[in-house]
Amino acid sequence: MPTLPNNPHLPFGDQRNAPWYGKDILSVSQFTREDLEYIFAVAHEMRIMVERVGTFDLLKGKILANLFYEPSTRTSSSFTSAMERLGGSVIPINEVRYSSVTKGESLPDTVRTLDCYADVIVLRHPEVGSAALAAKYARKPVINAGDGIGEHPTQALLDAFTIKEELGHIDGLTVTMLGDLKYGRTVHSLARLLSLYKVKIHYVSPEILRMPPEIIEELQRKGIEQTEHTRLEEVLPETDVLYVTRVQKERFEDPAVYESVKDAYVITPEVMKAAKQRMIVMHPLPRVYEISMDFDDDPRAAYFRQMEYGLYVRMALLAMVLGKA
Amino acid sequence: MPTLPNNPHLPFGDQRNAPWYGKDILSVSQFTREDLEYIFAVAHEMRIMVERVGTFDLLKGKILANLFYEPSTRTSSSFTSAMERLGGSVIPINEVRYSSVTKGESLPDTVRTLDCYADVIVLRHPEVGSAALAAKYARKPVINAGDGIGEHPTQALLDAFTIKEELGHIDGLTVTMLGDLKYGRTVHSLARLLSLYKVKIHYVSPEILRMPPEIIEELQRKGIEQTEHTRLEEVLPETDVLYVTRVQKERFEDPAVYESVKDAYVITPEVMKAAKQRMIVMHPLPRVYEISMDFDDDPRAAYFRQMEYGLYVRMALLAMVLGKA
Amino acid sequence: MPTLPNNPHLPFGDQRNAPWYGKDILSVSQFTREDLEYIFAVAHEMRIMVERVGTFDLLKGKILANLFYEPSTRTSSSFTSAMERLGGSVIPINEVRYSSVTKGESLPDTVRTLDCYADVIVLRHPEVGSAALAAKYARKPVINAGDGIGEHPTQALLDAFTIKEELGHIDGLTVTMLGDLKYGRTVHSLARLLSLYKVKIHYVSPEILRMPPEIIEELQRKGIEQTEHTRLEEVLPETDVLYVTRVQKERFEDPAVYESVKDAYVITPEVMKAAKQRMIVMHPLPRVYEISMDFDDDPRAAYFRQMEYGLYVRMALLAMVLGKA
Repeated sequence: MPTLPNNPHLPFGDQRNAPWYGKDILSVSQFTREDLEYIFAVAHEMRIMVERVGTFDLLKGKILANLFYEPSTRTSSSFTSAMERLGGSVIPINEVRYSSVTKGESLPDTVRTLDCYADVIVLRHPEVGSAALAAKYARKPVINAGDGIGEHPTQALLDAFTIKEELGHIDGLTVTMLGDLKYGRTVHSLARLLSLYKVKIHYVSPEILRMPPEIIEELQRKGIEQTEHTRLEEVLPETDVLYVTRVQKERFEDPAVYESVKDAYVITPEVMKAAKQRMIVMHPLPRVYEISMDFDDDPRAAYFRQMEYGLYVRMALLAMVLGKA
Repeated sequence: MPTLPNNPHLPFGDQRNAPWYGKDILSVSQFTREDLEYIFAVAHEMRIMVERVGTFDLLKGKILANLFYEPSTRTSSSFTSAMERLGGSVIPINEVRYSSVTKGESLPDTVRTLDCYADVIVLRHPEVGSAALAAKYARKPVINAGDGIGEHPTQALLDAFTIKEELGHIDGLTVTMLGDLKYGRTVHSLARLLSLYKVKIHYVSPEILRMPPEIIEELQRKGIEQTEHTRLEEVLPETDVLYVTRVQKERFEDPAVYESVKDAYVITPEVMKAAKQRMIVMHPLPRVYEISMDFDDDPRAAYFRQMEYGLYVRMALLAMVLGKA
Repeated sequence: MPTLPNNPHLPFGDQRNAPWYGKDILSVSQFTREDLEYIFAVAHEMRIMVERVGTFDLLKGKILANLFYEPSTRTSSSFTSAMERLGGSVIPINEVRYSSVTKGESLPDTVRTLDCYADVIVLRHPEVGSAALAAKYARKPVINAGDGIGEHPTQALLDAFTIKEELGHIDGLTVTMLGDLKYGRTVHSLARLLSLYKVKIHYVSPEILRMPPEIIEELQRKGIEQTEHTRLEEVLPETDVLYVTRVQKERFEDPAVYESVKDAYVITPEVMKAAKQRMIVMHPLPRVYEISMDFDDDPRAAYFRQMEYGLYVRMALLAMVLGKA
């Protein structure tokens, strides 16, 4: 963190030769292991600063356009808080469906308009590739906050950062992904990100919701040890990180099949007796029934702390692309 | 008000031993008369500061999550302004119905998520008891901004503060509540709050919209002198505070009954000739036809100033629960 | 721009005798040529400051109520950014249709409520005359951000400022307005504003979408040279400013007529070969097909820069009516 400035108008000199200055954050595939280590180091500094002073003026005078074509209270609030904890301002744009977009304006034009008003653009959009399209036309850095079934890189980064902060390291860990591994954007991105480390991954899911083979092959080529299971008991005892996702009824053609499997993917204090004492349970939230509220007070329940780590990661990314870290 | 700090990151030391630090504001029934006097004293200081400097940095670096499950422009704007006039920031969350809530997230999880992002949570929710539920799970203070037909304590506080600021004191006053006293959340809460003072209360309403007997009994036990009327003329001349609410057509089974009574509950310059010169007319707003616009310029029309007092009360509460007052 | 203050609470002394202090911005017809020159001078200073420092604290501690009864991402974001680049805060009010307005509150009461919370009110409303009505009741300055088919004065000001900044002057220019000149609020207001200068105006439109005769007569009385055309080729070569608007299908009773004329009002690199090298193409945005994206990289394409000039004009107006310029 730089020290405080003399000139209140320019609290910290723009570091235009900073490595991430002006960069877009579009996909987990853009990061090297060194990138992750840098991001996590900055995010850790953010954590220390927030715990010590709450808010500080690193991005004072900077403006974030928070452009959400579909609602997401959690992600939107997280970026808003990240910007405000850094002393910056936010232009909230949640009503896109009713406004110039419905009059037929293209995403490139919308982004070029916001270019004038903001210093960085966070984009949530239902279409795959929209963030890359926006980044092509924007002069200002674009951060992808989810483009449909495509990418949600800041979620994957916060997931990995949570593991790092909670367990001290990622190398050497056994990660178990549980639930709907077929449609879950977050588990796909996290698996790809973890492949930069030396981890073992277990996939536990109903037969029809298995991790897509192309992702398993991609990780295999990188030498990641992976196994597939339908029953959590087989891998829970050796698991360091249990990443839970919801098995949704609507994914099943036959409701009877759903009924027969659903209880196998619900985390309760009883189930967790078989797990280590030092391990963590994660979840991208919102959580419905797949983790019992009875487990919330267990120290291994990391899913609410995970939200907080998300704040630090987003603070780090904002500071980096604005040349302040 | 504390003096200005040396360290711009920590403008005012957190007063963690301040009496209201971290407290929730959930119900009028939580306040003693001493509490009210403290709140009003802080709110009066806020008034002086706003009149003198407009905005000041008492809560610089603090973040308010303004969580509205149902829209209320007035209350939402009032809290936003209160936070901004104190130099703090706001995360506006108005679109809850479209976002993670519709994906089935529970209020406790939403609140625990916001816990990470904000320093204080203001909650408006259609269900009775929701604010207490939120407060149970939130680490940060929760301020109830209306939970259905339950409570709206900051409205009652601003009503009482209005009386205090406009007339100098509350003890000894004659307060007349007019209109729909059966369904009006604001008159119920105000009556309870006023019972901490030595007041006389007149209830004037159509027969079918009388003040609920349990409230009358509750105040009776506290020794409050109360009378019920159907005609305003009977009590207007001795009234110090006339609190007007709307008599809505839809409350009446028989439209003819509504037509026969409605004009008796409309305030006009003509009607007000019978009132004292030094008294005030209040209204929780929005006002429709129940107070004639012709009366707006009368110095006794306090309903717009009432909104302003609301700002000061909310500034006071925010500062108090954040340990800055 | 004033220099920095000693007292952080009052960064710049209120200049209550400043010529625009407390004024409303309601209509282009309120401006003299001297007014425009003053606004443009302040807007130019804003441009220099934004390019140099991005954001500065001229309006620190001031609050803008951004009151939008109908959505307009572009205008709303522009005012939000303008306020934030000046260090001020914003109360965003976009959900008006769901809130107290739907409970029947009148615009005057809404405005008087916001009076307490904000220092300046920006109003977008679907009804003609609403801004004037709001200004009548508000103690704080009101800026009209579009009242139905009425006025949108800040759009006209930014259009004229764009011409001034891009071409250095307005006197002596030939301005061609193209497309739907009958229903286009922006071209009506711009024509009126340009009549304060010595310009020549060409109107190019389909027969059924000609500039209303009352506007042509109004400008004639002021000595403005005007000509009407249906074909752009007739005037493009001598045009200094080409102001493009969309010809919408729904304006035509007979679709065949629309099909026969529409291509004549589309700007492409090919069409623009006949234009000067030193001229500009403007558009109020959103743009759909009426300007080809192939033309966007041409230096004469000024429509995205136009958005940026809008930011400076709105910063200037906010500073002026708040007594800071």
